[in-house]
Amino acid sequence: MSIYHVGILVGSLRKASFNKKIAQFILEQEESKFGYRLIDISELPLYNQDFDDEGNPPASYTRFRQELASLDAVLFITAEYNRSVPAVLKNAIDVGSRPYGKNKWDGKPAAILSSSTGVYGGFGANHHLRQSLVFVNLLTMQQPEAYLGDITTCIGTDGTVESQKTKDFLRSFKNAFEQWAERIIHTKGQD
Amino acid sequence: MSIYHVGILVGSLRKASFNKKIAQFILEQEESKFGYRLIDISELPLYNQDFDDEGNPPASYTRFRQELASLDAVLFITAEYNRSVPAVLKNAIDVGSRPYGKNKWDGKPAAILSSSTGVYGGFGANHHLRQSLVFVNLLTMQQPEAYLGDITTCIGTDGTVESQKTKDFLRSFKNAFEQWAERIIHTKGQD
Amino acid sequence: MSIYHVGILVGSLRKASFNKKIAQFILEQEESKFGYRLIDISELPLYNQDFDDEGNPPASYTRFRQELASLDAVLFITAEYNRSVPAVLKNAIDVGSRPYGKNKWDGKPAAILSSSTGVYGGFGANHHLRQSLVFVNLLTMQQPEAYLGDITTCIGTDGTVESQKTKDFLRSFKNAFEQWAERIIHTKGQD
Amino acid sequence: MSIYHVGILVGSLRKASFNKKIAQFILEQEESKFGYRLIDISELPLYNQDFDDEGNPPASYTRFRQELASLDAVLFITAEYNRSVPAVLKNAIDVGSRPYGKNKWDGKPAAILSSSTGVYGGFGANHHLRQSLVFVNLLTMQQPEAYLGDITTCIGTDGTVESQKTKDFLRSFKNAFEQWAERIIHTKGQD
Repeated sequence: MSIYHVGILVGSLRKASFNKKIAQFILEQEESKFGYRLIDISELPLYNQDFDDEGNPPASYTRFRQELASLDAVLFITAEYNRSVPAVLKNAIDVGSRPYGKNKWDGKPAAILSSSTGVYGGFGANHHLRQSLVFVNLLTMQQPEAYLGDITTCIGTDGTVESQKTKDFLRSFKNAFEQWAERIIHTKGQD
Repeated sequence: MSIYHVGILVGSLRKASFNKKIAQFILEQEESKFGYRLIDISELPLYNQDFDDEGNPPASYTRFRQELASLDAVLFITAEYNRSVPAVLKNAIDVGSRPYGKNKWDGKPAAILSSSTGVYGGFGANHHLRQSLVFVNLLTMQQPEAYLGDITTCIGTDGTVESQKTKDFLRSFKNAFEQWAERIIHTKGQD
Repeated sequence: MSIYHVGILVGSLRKASFNKKIAQFILEQEESKFGYRLIDISELPLYNQDFDDEGNPPASYTRFRQELASLDAVLFITAEYNRSVPAVLKNAIDVGSRPYGKNKWDGKPAAILSSSTGVYGGFGANHHLRQSLVFVNLLTMQQPEAYLGDITTCIGTDGTVESQKTKDFLRSFKNAFEQWAERIIHTKGQD
Repeated sequence: MSIYHVGILVGSLRKASFNKKIAQFILEQEESKFGYRLIDISELPLYNQDFDDEGNPPASYTRFRQELASLDAVLFITAEYNRSVPAVLKNAIDVGSRPYGKNKWDGKPAAILSSSTGVYGGFGANHHLRQSLVFVNLLTMQQPEAYLGDITTCIGTDGTVESQKTKDFLRSFKNAFEQWAERIIHTKGQD
């Protein structure tokens, strides 16, 4: 039985998204102290501060914020659009950080995996996301960085992660993330 | 009568948005060779590649892309959320850049003005946006950079730009942008 | 008596550097579990991999690397040059990260304070430095961010930090850094 | 006979630097309206504002600044160190931008080619450099971006660019840069 709850946020809405398949691989790993679940960010309207100022946020905002509050850690698995973070994921960051003074990300451990069909592995999205995570105080793992390039070659025709090298990398990344998350969680009272 | 059509995209959805007020100031300047109009980006659903792959994009995408095609230049006026570009603006960049091979931004002159209620003037949003503009090949003015900090102090109680210093800066920024845009437009056949 | 050794690296070579004065303020605080000392980076020749490949690095490289090895944590106090990290500090990062496989920064806690005479407080230098620290695996504090703008107004004619607001900020920043550093140091065996 | 003078600045000091070999390839192309030459940046001491404030800059600074003044355009060919710009190149940017008010880069056309032995092609260095070029007002080509990954496989045992794909890319990049540079140079009086 899992002790720690990790939310996975996927930065791509495409049904057959490669990033969703990577998320699926993480979800299917043997259970450990860390239990993973997908957090749906597809239905969040574009952030508008009026929603919060008028005290009448969309129901999807409220559900999402409650879900974030219940998490111990956050894992981002994201595509890159135009050398930066896809709007769907940036929107989730913005919604979760508000209303002012009620930032739901604050102090949780996090990690980022970016991918692309090209060779650069979403480097631009990865580091732009890191800059936002500084502000919302998600304590992001530094190493290993995770840029999965040529992602189409890692996924088989059945839609699962096929390449052994990719499987090994994902498992070691997950393992490193859990060690990082434990360090942060265990010392939480100390800041 | 204006010869060149400039679209203004505002990176904030708030009704009383400071950035909308700055845009309004630009719109109200005496007409020149450059005619400005607001491009509505509030109704674009979060970008999902399936829309394009299935050949059935939302009507708002089609209208927006047609509108972009008619522009000679683009002016971004944006807030900063969490040290980066608000999702509403990143989404517009993404929608306008697609479907693959039909990037509507390609080769147009552009400029960025960022603002914030704090002192840093949206520096993070400004430069993250610049990185995306490299990829979509919007030819972005380098100088003057435009970071408007403490934006609340520049706007009067009637909702218009009040500070003379800000008015002067906005006019000189607009002027520099138009000179940059002319250089790009006049040499367009040459690349 | 201090238990933890913190090295301060200053990103400015000017004799009357404001950043040196901020460093001096940190050095003069009452001793705690954390003992601070300045690390001289002014004499390091521009990094050239040949030095290491030929097994004959400058004596200043060797001394600097030994000094880094003895540190428990690192504090960067830096100016911004041309919207990024001053070469003197980037050079120190590069020298300390090499030769390949002997990265001296690896796993240590770190924090960044940037400053500028203008209002933006070295935002560009701060976040560019963060990107390098991801790679060398310095575990960098996220919050509070520290951008000191208008730095000339914070320093008195005698060259010491004068503004009470700045003093208070520096003390609370130092305090937050020490709490962060303790969390990292105490859980070091756990990764 | 060349009409336009382009300076190439290489961001690596290693004798057998891959980036120097790419620069060499550019230098060996058939002469056109654009004549290229290497600008030596290896001897510039780390930038210290005191040099300029005291009116006594190193001779290497003065020579370098004079050389920049004679250029019509600038081409950067750079390695990436620790996800950012090598200190040697950042230093050259800083020296060329000073003393205050005498920025030698101002208004010239520029382009960036980054490379790495890994697959990411110096993406981090490329975009960090772009941010500095905004400030010094080098008018940087947006497309094509040039990230040369796996650079070791592009260079032959004789130290010249060997891969036909790389040669073709470098020629088309050079061609695009020259078209961009002409657009900027021809409209120079117009801003």
